[in-house]
Amino acid sequence: MMTFAGSHTVLVTGARGFLGRHVARCFAAAGHTVSGIGHGEWRRDEHSAYGISTWHQADITLERLVQVAGEPDCIVHCAGSSSVGFSLTNPLEDFDRSATTTVAVLDYVRRVTPNTAVVLPSSAAVYGTAILLPNNESAPLRPASPYGVHKLIVEELCQSYAKHFKTRLAIVRLFSLYGEGLRKQLMWDACKKFASGAAEFFGSGEELRDWLHVEDAAKLLHKAALNASSLCPVVNGGSGQGISVGRALSLLASTYGTLEPLSFTGEKRAGDPTGYQADITAANQWGWEPRIPLDEGLQRYVRWFKELSQ
Amino acid sequence: MMTFAGSHTVLVTGARGFLGRHVARCFAAAGHTVSGIGHGEWRRDEHSAYGISTWHQADITLERLVQVAGEPDCIVHCAGSSSVGFSLTNPLEDFDRSATTTVAVLDYVRRVTPNTAVVLPSSAAVYGTAILLPNNESAPLRPASPYGVHKLIVEELCQSYAKHFKTRLAIVRLFSLYGEGLRKQLMWDACKKFASGAAEFFGSGEELRDWLHVEDAAKLLHKAALNASSLCPVVNGGSGQGISVGRALSLLASTYGTLEPLSFTGEKRAGDPTGYQADITAANQWGWEPRIPLDEGLQRYVRWFKELSQ
Repeated sequence: MMTFAGSHTVLVTGARGFLGRHVARCFAAAGHTVSGIGHGEWRRDEHSAYGISTWHQADITLERLVQVAGEPDCIVHCAGSSSVGFSLTNPLEDFDRSATTTVAVLDYVRRVTPNTAVVLPSSAAVYGTAILLPNNESAPLRPASPYGVHKLIVEELCQSYAKHFKTRLAIVRLFSLYGEGLRKQLMWDACKKFASGAAEFFGSGEELRDWLHVEDAAKLLHKAALNASSLCPVVNGGSGQGISVGRALSLLASTYGTLEPLSFTGEKRAGDPTGYQADITAANQWGWEPRIPLDEGLQRYVRWFKELSQ
Repeated sequence: MMTFAGSHTVLVTGARGFLGRHVARCFAAAGHTVSGIGHGEWRRDEHSAYGISTWHQADITLERLVQVAGEPDCIVHCAGSSSVGFSLTNPLEDFDRSATTTVAVLDYVRRVTPNTAVVLPSSAAVYGTAILLPNNESAPLRPASPYGVHKLIVEELCQSYAKHFKTRLAIVRLFSLYGEGLRKQLMWDACKKFASGAAEFFGSGEELRDWLHVEDAAKLLHKAALNASSLCPVVNGGSGQGISVGRALSLLASTYGTLEPLSFTGEKRAGDPTGYQADITAANQWGWEPRIPLDEGLQRYVRWFKELSQ
C-alpha cells in the first residue's frame, strides 16, 4: 500500500501530455521514482525537468507494457483522448486512445503485477446532460458525446477489473482543467485571440464550467493512488464552483490586459452540455482541496503564455 | 430500407460460428445475397450449404472491412465472444472480440456505407444481477461478469453511433441460445455426459433460464434488420418463459433416453446470475414470436447430436 512517507515507483502513461507532465512532477516532488510511457520523442534533459527518470516512447499496448513497464507500485494512466471535438470526427481513434489503452493497462496489471495501484483520470463528460448541479458521483451518467461515452466505458472496465480480478483502482472525474502547458481548448484559444486583437467566442458565454488548475488535479491523483482499492472509489476533481465561460473569459481578458470587448456567437455545439459543477465532498474526505483559485491560476497561465511568445 | 419483398445484400460477421451459420441460412432463405467474414478456413461447398456465396477469412478490423466488405444493405455482427467463463480467464481477449470488432464495424459503416443497417446480437448477460423478472429492456443493467460488461459496452457504442452519426442500428439481447450446431455450453456438455453414462451437473439446477432455439433467434435478427434505425431500438430475444436448468436437463435426458438419474453439485459460479426470463413484448411488436417450443427443439438437438457420433 502506498503511503505519504515511503518512496515508490510510479509509471505515468501519456507522461509527455499536458496532464501527464504535471502528474509526473507532482509524484516526483512527493519523493517517488517516476518513469513514463507514451508517444513522442523526449530527450533526457527534457523529461528530467518533469522528474521523469526514464521515458519509453511506445504505444500503450499489453505487449509494450510487458517489455518496459516492470512492476511499479502505481500506474497513473494519463494517456487517452482529451477532446470532445476530435471524438465527433474520429470516434474510432478516440475509442482506441481511451478504452483500448485502458484495457491494456488493466490486463497488464492483472497478469503481471496485481498489487500495483492504478489511477484513472476520467472526465466530467460522463455526466453529460445531467441536469442536477452540483454533479454528484452517484448521479446517473448520460454522456453527450462519443468522448464522454468512451470515458464511461473506461470507468466500466475499471469497475469490472476491480470486481472480478481485485485490481486496486481509483477513478477521478476531472472537470475543466487548465494551467501552464495547456496548448488547446478555451484558455489557449482565448490567449491566442487576445494576442491577435480578437475576442469573439463560440457559444453563449453562459455555459457553467468547473475550472481546476492542473497542479491541484495532480495532487488529487496522488491522493487517489493512496486510496486505490478493489472497491474502485470514484471521486470528482473540480473546484466545487460553477463559473460561466463568460465570467472566466472576462477574468482572463483583464489578466491578459486586452482592450477588445468580449462577444459570443450564441451557437450551441453538439455534445457540449450546458452545465458542470463538481460536488467535491468525496475528494475532501481524502484530505484534498483545491489550493489555486481561478484568478491566481489565470495569472500564472497568462504569464506562461506571454513568456512563450517572447 | 429493407423490406420482406426485396432482395438485398447482407454481410454476416462471424458467419462460421454457431449463430452466424443459422443467421446466414435464414437471410439467404429470405432471398438475400449473403456474404460472410470471420475466422477459419471454409471451403465453398461448405459455406454454400449455409447460403453464403462469398467467405472472407479475415479479422474484423476497419482495414479488412475496407478491403472486402463493400456496401451491403445490412451487416449482422455475429462475431464476438460467447462465454462467461472465457471472459473470467481472458478478459482482454473477450473485450477485443466483443468491443473492438464492434467499433470497427460501426466506424466502417460511418465512413464508407452510412445507409447500411447494422444488427447487433447482444446478450441477456447485460441484465446480470437484475432481480425483477421477466427482464424488461428498460431495466437497469448490472452485468455480473466481464462478458456481460463487454456486451454492455458494445450496446453503448451502438447507441453512441446511432445518436451522433445517425447509424441505423438495432440491438437484440439474446437469452440462452441452443440448437443444432452448438458444440459448447450446457446442452452440448449434457449430451456428452449422457453419451458416457454420466449425469452430474454444476450448480443447483434451480437457475432460471430462458431457452431460445437458434432458428427463432435468426428470424428475430432478420426482423431487427427491417427495424434498424438511428433510434437504435433494443429488444429481448427469448421464449418469454423461465425454465430451470434442472427442468430443461430432465427434458433433454428423457429425449436422449439416458437412464442415469440427474444430480447437481449445488455450487454457484461467479458471474452466473440466478435468474433470466425475457419480456418479449417489444419483439412481438415487430411481428416476431418464437416458433420452436423447448421439447421440439431438444428433440432436434438430440437427433443432430446422435447423428454426429455415428
